[in-house]
Amino acid sequence: MQKPAQTIYMDHAATTAVDPRVVDAVLPYFSYKYGNASSIYGLGREAAKAIDEARRTVADILGCEPGEVIFTSCGSESDNLALRGVGWARRNLGKGNHIITSSIEHHAVSHTCEQLEKHFGFEITYVPVDKHGLLDPDDVGRAIKDNTILISIMYANNAVGTIEPIAEIGKIAKEKGIPFHTDAVQAGGTLNLDVDELNVDLLSLSAHKVYGPKGIGVLYVRKGVSLLPTQTGGAHERNRRAGTENVPSIVGLATALKIAHEELETNNQRIAALRDRLIKGVLENIDEVELTGHPTNRLPNSASFVFKYIEGESMLLNLDLAGICASSGSACTSASMEPSHVLLAMGIPPEVAHGSLRLTLGRENTEEDVDYVLEILPGIVQKLRAMSPLYKAAAS
Amino acid sequence: MQKPAQTIYMDHAATTAVDPRVVDAVLPYFSYKYGNASSIYGLGREAAKAIDEARRTVADILGCEPGEVIFTSCGSESDNLALRGVGWARRNLGKGNHIITSSIEHHAVSHTCEQLEKHFGFEITYVPVDKHGLLDPDDVGRAIKDNTILISIMYANNAVGTIEPIAEIGKIAKEKGIPFHTDAVQAGGTLNLDVDELNVDLLSLSAHKVYGPKGIGVLYVRKGVSLLPTQTGGAHERNRRAGTENVPSIVGLATALKIAHEELETNNQRIAALRDRLIKGVLENIDEVELTGHPTNRLPNSASFVFKYIEGESMLLNLDLAGICASSGSACTSASMEPSHVLLAMGIPPEVAHGSLRLTLGRENTEEDVDYVLEILPGIVQKLRAMSPLYKAAAS
Repeated sequence: MQKPAQTIYMDHAATTAVDPRVVDAVLPYFSYKYGNASSIYGLGREAAKAIDEARRTVADILGCEPGEVIFTSCGSESDNLALRGVGWARRNLGKGNHIITSSIEHHAVSHTCEQLEKHFGFEITYVPVDKHGLLDPDDVGRAIKDNTILISIMYANNAVGTIEPIAEIGKIAKEKGIPFHTDAVQAGGTLNLDVDELNVDLLSLSAHKVYGPKGIGVLYVRKGVSLLPTQTGGAHERNRRAGTENVPSIVGLATALKIAHEELETNNQRIAALRDRLIKGVLENIDEVELTGHPTNRLPNSASFVFKYIEGESMLLNLDLAGICASSGSACTSASMEPSHVLLAMGIPPEVAHGSLRLTLGRENTEEDVDYVLEILPGIVQKLRAMSPLYKAAAS
Repeated sequence: MQKPAQTIYMDHAATTAVDPRVVDAVLPYFSYKYGNASSIYGLGREAAKAIDEARRTVADILGCEPGEVIFTSCGSESDNLALRGVGWARRNLGKGNHIITSSIEHHAVSHTCEQLEKHFGFEITYVPVDKHGLLDPDDVGRAIKDNTILISIMYANNAVGTIEPIAEIGKIAKEKGIPFHTDAVQAGGTLNLDVDELNVDLLSLSAHKVYGPKGIGVLYVRKGVSLLPTQTGGAHERNRRAGTENVPSIVGLATALKIAHEELETNNQRIAALRDRLIKGVLENIDEVELTGHPTNRLPNSASFVFKYIEGESMLLNLDLAGICASSGSACTSASMEPSHVLLAMGIPPEVAHGSLRLTLGRENTEEDVDYVLEILPGIVQKLRAMSPLYKAAAS
C-alpha cells in the first residue's frame, strides 16, 4: 500500500483541527465584533452578549447555571484553579490541608498536587488503580480523613482511555461534604457531562480536544463551593478569573462543544466501531502486544497498546514516515524519555511501558485509515524488533 | 453633522480589532497546521517550529534571548505570574516578603498584591504619584527594605497615559539586586521595549492591545530570576507555564507585535498629531475640563480628561448614541461605579474623578474622526451639565 497523500491523524487525544463551523463562528469576533466585553458601548455589549450566550450553551450541556461556568485559558488552568483555588480557600477557612487524587491523573493535576505538597504544606494522597487503570471508589472513601478538603479524580484517562466511576466517587464525597473535582478534558467531546448525574462540584474542560480552538477552557464550579481566585485583576468571570474575556475563543469553545454534544451518539457509534476494528486488527496480527486500559469501559475513540521489545518513540517516528500521526501516551510528555506514570501505576513494568502506542480516532477518520494503519504497523514492529537486542535475547 | 454610518472607535486602550494580516497568519493553525506542538510527528514539529519563530520575533523586539520569553494567556496572567511566581520563589529562598508597587497600577497588579497581603502574609508598599500620575524614582528607592523581594511599576498608565521613568527605577532596583517587573501591556505597541535599555527583569505584554488576538500574552523573565510556576502540569514553556501551547494565538501575537514595531514611528507620529488635535480641541471648546495624566510625557495615542459636574457613564452612553466608542478609565472597571483609583491617587477629588473620559486613538482613526468627536462632545457636556444639580449650584 502506498503512503497516502494526506496525513492520517490518529492523535485526537492530543489535539484536534478546529471544525470549519467553529472557525466561521470565531472570525467575526476578530474583525468587526472586536469589542472588549467589559466596555459599556454597543460594540462592548455585543461582545458581552456573545459571552452570555456561550455561557448558556455550556451550562445547558453541563446541566448547570450559567453563573457556575468560568471560562479559563485551557484545561490545565482549569485543573490548577480547581486545586489551588479550592485548596487555599478551604484551608484558609480552617477545613484542613489534605487533598485526595489518583495515581493516573494528568500532570496538570498531579504536578499541581506535588507543588502544593512540596512548597505549601498540603498533604496529598494518591489512590491507586488496578491493572486496567480503574479506581475503586471504596479506596477513595477509605482515603478520606478529617482534614480532607478536596477530592480530584479524572473522568477518563488521557493515556489509556479508561473511564473512571465518577458518579460513585462523587456520591461518597457528597456524603462527607467534601468538594469533588473531575478533570473531564479527555471526556469532554464523547461522554455525558451532566454535573448532577456525575455528582461533581468542579469539572475541567478544554476546547481544543473537541474541535475547538486552543487556549480556552472551562471550569465548572458548583454554587456555594469556596474558591480563592488564582489569577486576580479585573472583576471578570464574577471575580473568579481576571483577564479581558477571550471573546472569539469563548464563542469557539461553546460552538465546538455544542456540535460535539449534538452529534455525540452518531459520532461515538461510528468511531467506536473503527476503534474496535483497529484494536482487533492489532491484537490479531501482531505478537506480544497488549491492549492497555480497560477492555470495554474506555473512551470510544481510544486504542492504546504496549508492544514488547520496542521503544515507543521509534514506532512513532516510523509511523510518521508512513504519514500516520500517533503518540506514545500524553502529548505533554511525548518529548520525555520517562515511561508513562499511568502505565507504571497500572503495574506495567518500565521496560514494557517504554513500548507504548496510543491511537486516538476522530471525526475525519475512515475505515480506510484504520486498514492502512493495520497494514503498516506490523511491518514497523517487525523491523524494530529485528533491531532489538532484548527481542533477540527473548527469542533465542 | 450626521452620525457616521460606521462606529468611530476611540477606545484602543481597551482592545483593538485584529489586524487582517494577523488573521491571515493565524488561520492555517486552526485548519491544516493544527498539531500539538509537543507531539513528535511532522504536524507537531511544524507547530513547534512556528512557536520557535514567534518566540524569536518577540525576543528580537525585547532585545532578549528567546528562552527568556514565556507565552501566557493574557497580560493579567503575565502580571500574576510575575508577582506570585517571583514573590513565592524568592520568599521560599528566605529573601523576604516585601513587594514595592505603585498606587496607579492596573488591577492585575494591585489586586494581586492585595491578595498576597491579605491571604499569604506578604507586605506591600504602594509608592505614590504626583498630580500627573508620575512616580519619583527616589520614592521607590526609599521604599526598599532588607526584605524587599520584588518591585513592580507599570511602564505607562492605562487610564491616563502617563509614561513612568522605568529605566531609572530599574537602575535603582539593579543596584540593590532586587528583580524589577514592569506591566508594559499598555505600552506594548507604541514604546521601546528593549529590556536592557529599560533595566527590567520581568515585563508583561498582551496581544489584543496591539491589533493581535485576545487571550494571549507574554511574560519576559530575565535569565537567573527565580520563578515558581503558578500554572503547573506539562513541561511547556520550559516548565514555567503548563498548558498546550496556543499555537494560532502565539503566531498572532508575534505577527501583531512585529507589525506594530515595524510601523511604530510612522503610526506614533500620525496618531500623536491626532491626539494633540483632540486634546487642543477639547480644552479650547469646553469649559471646566482638565487634561488628566502628564501633559507631554504620555502615550502617543492617549487623551484623557475630567469634566466637572458630569458623570462619566452618562457621557459614554451619549457618545455611544452618536456612534463614538470611548471609556471613562480602564475597560475592566467601566462597569464599576467607583471613581478610578488612578485619578484618586493623582489627588483628583472623587466628585471630579466621576466625570472622567478616556479617548484612545488607533491606526484606523482619521482627522475626520477627531473633528466629529470635537463637534459632538461639547453638546453632550452642555446637555448633561444642564441636568446636573451640582452644575446649577456652582453656576448660581
